[in-house]
Amino acid sequence: MERVYNFSAGPSTLPEEVLKTAASELVNYQDAGMSVMEMSHRSAAYSKIIEEAKQDFIDLLSIPDNYEVLFLQGGASLQFAMIPLNIGTKNKKAQFINTGAWSKKAISEAKKFIDVEVLASSEDDTFSYIPDLSKIDIDPNSDYFYITSNNTIYGTEFTSLPDTKGVPVVADMSSNILSKPINVSDYGIIFAGAQKNMGPAGMTVVIIRKDLIGEVPETVPTMLKYSTHAENDSMFNTPPTYSIYVAGLVFKWLKENGGLEAIEKINTEKADLLYDYLDSTDFYVAPVDKASRSKMNVTFICKDDALNADFIKEAAAQGMVNLKGHRSVGGMRASIYNAMPVEGVQKLVDFMKAFEAKHS
Amino acid sequence: MERVYNFSAGPSTLPEEVLKTAASELVNYQDAGMSVMEMSHRSAAYSKIIEEAKQDFIDLLSIPDNYEVLFLQGGASLQFAMIPLNIGTKNKKAQFINTGAWSKKAISEAKKFIDVEVLASSEDDTFSYIPDLSKIDIDPNSDYFYITSNNTIYGTEFTSLPDTKGVPVVADMSSNILSKPINVSDYGIIFAGAQKNMGPAGMTVVIIRKDLIGEVPETVPTMLKYSTHAENDSMFNTPPTYSIYVAGLVFKWLKENGGLEAIEKINTEKADLLYDYLDSTDFYVAPVDKASRSKMNVTFICKDDALNADFIKEAAAQGMVNLKGHRSVGGMRASIYNAMPVEGVQKLVDFMKAFEAKHS
Repeated sequence: MERVYNFSAGPSTLPEEVLKTAASELVNYQDAGMSVMEMSHRSAAYSKIIEEAKQDFIDLLSIPDNYEVLFLQGGASLQFAMIPLNIGTKNKKAQFINTGAWSKKAISEAKKFIDVEVLASSEDDTFSYIPDLSKIDIDPNSDYFYITSNNTIYGTEFTSLPDTKGVPVVADMSSNILSKPINVSDYGIIFAGAQKNMGPAGMTVVIIRKDLIGEVPETVPTMLKYSTHAENDSMFNTPPTYSIYVAGLVFKWLKENGGLEAIEKINTEKADLLYDYLDSTDFYVAPVDKASRSKMNVTFICKDDALNADFIKEAAAQGMVNLKGHRSVGGMRASIYNAMPVEGVQKLVDFMKAFEAKHS
Repeated sequence: MERVYNFSAGPSTLPEEVLKTAASELVNYQDAGMSVMEMSHRSAAYSKIIEEAKQDFIDLLSIPDNYEVLFLQGGASLQFAMIPLNIGTKNKKAQFINTGAWSKKAISEAKKFIDVEVLASSEDDTFSYIPDLSKIDIDPNSDYFYITSNNTIYGTEFTSLPDTKGVPVVADMSSNILSKPINVSDYGIIFAGAQKNMGPAGMTVVIIRKDLIGEVPETVPTMLKYSTHAENDSMFNTPPTYSIYVAGLVFKWLKENGGLEAIEKINTEKADLLYDYLDSTDFYVAPVDKASRSKMNVTFICKDDALNADFIKEAAAQGMVNLKGHRSVGGMRASIYNAMPVEGVQKLVDFMKAFEAKHS
């Protein structure tokens, strides 16, 4: 089979140029005489790789000097514990917005360690919208305010932040990091698993304001303290070296293609292609509130629910795979991360039109 | 530069055949139309990869049914916390043998959570030997008995276990797992980072006797509970999919080459080549006690300490790299894991002889 258009929510499609570079360098990286996989993480050759990856990431997001960038392991799920253990230490309280499964997991994990207040939730309508942030009541004594900036499963995305009265904002950006410029200074902690917009699973990026890297109780495991990793520049123990290398190639690909301003334009174009078509027909239903629509994960269903399975099957036969919605919501989901080309989305829209015509 | 002989202690050399297979499949895996890196961890194609990797690993080590195999993240360093948090819960006590830096880290981390007793240590002689296990006094009320089965830095290796009176043995096998057959039933927990004998860094394998996967206090982070991963077959969250794939290729390579009996013979041949030569000369000194010598990491120094730097430099110029000893001990270290061919070790011995002749 030729390479397909892969609409998987994660791990997900990567730029073909990046994969080709990785393949060509896999057995013998540049002039090193060995694979990146075989390099000591403390070697000169690997140091250059990780330092460039970090700097390119900093450049892409214009991360200010008062933030630390960490390349960790364990996924977002480990961050759900690390965040309260590290920055929920003062008042032992945090406030959350619940926009779906990932927020719920973060809330549930934080409750093990601190007091949790859910300020707003869209659970009443199957998480199909982002709650109105103008109505929430942020407690200035909260250690942090937490959001999932893009909900992969339901296809919603925050487009603004509330005034948190100085309370640090913590954002799980796993599924929309690097999809558009953001103002990092608006956040206390940003974290993201690599496997959507960055690279292979197994690496988690944490951007943390340096003043939040504080002392934590002795009972916190060493590997779960941000200070451990910050003090050792993500080299306290062997980092996920190959995942970082591939992510570094993705960062270079983004820079060469104009950075986040350029990718945001393309991401908007792709999302518009899909949403504009969805709005023009009643054959499909897009369940998410228009103002809350994600540009990364576009969810829709056939109005005639019996057709969803055929849609997914026929699309796959035409080289558009992993369009099945998350098992908890059903229907379809097109994940159109940075590496999904406009051509892939256009092909999907063309297929959707043809499928509609055939069944109308 | 052509591919070199890479004597790095970890991440370390991988079989060239495995790297070539990975390179050829990187952009488009078999008939999947995508890279393994891009596959949903819950897809049928990826399920086959992880299930085969797990089964091949079980086959190689003849792991009995009453053990669980977990593919985790975080390295051995995270296991240093997970072990006391999960199995140090009954009597809150464990006993350790201290054979070097990695044991010390495990001891230090365990002390955060439980009582620790060090039964024996070789620190009095720069960790150059494995303590006499016939003289230790194992407390039957200890929750576990802990060893580092091979010490990467100093080059020592356990060749036997004491009678622990039913106390589960926990072994950090990061640097000698899969190097020889072992009797898994002798252990409660075996764990190992992938980056020596298995594959790319970022994956940690845990073999745990099922009855040890018990209830833990609510305050233990979800990701640090073995039960979380055992109940979800290492898919509680996205596993390090690509690292597992490459490790799976290494497992297949081992099986195709005769499994652990065959690799043990080759590893013995390689170690003998080096140690026999070291024993035949006084130009070099092998500081480790003969009965405690590691077959994975062979440490030695030039008797004339001033020559070590030249040795390392000249060897590198001839395509034998990463022979520098760990920064804490100096001298040289040849890590000769499974993927180091006999030819690489023979070339090193030939170089050592020539270097000796030149400087005698």
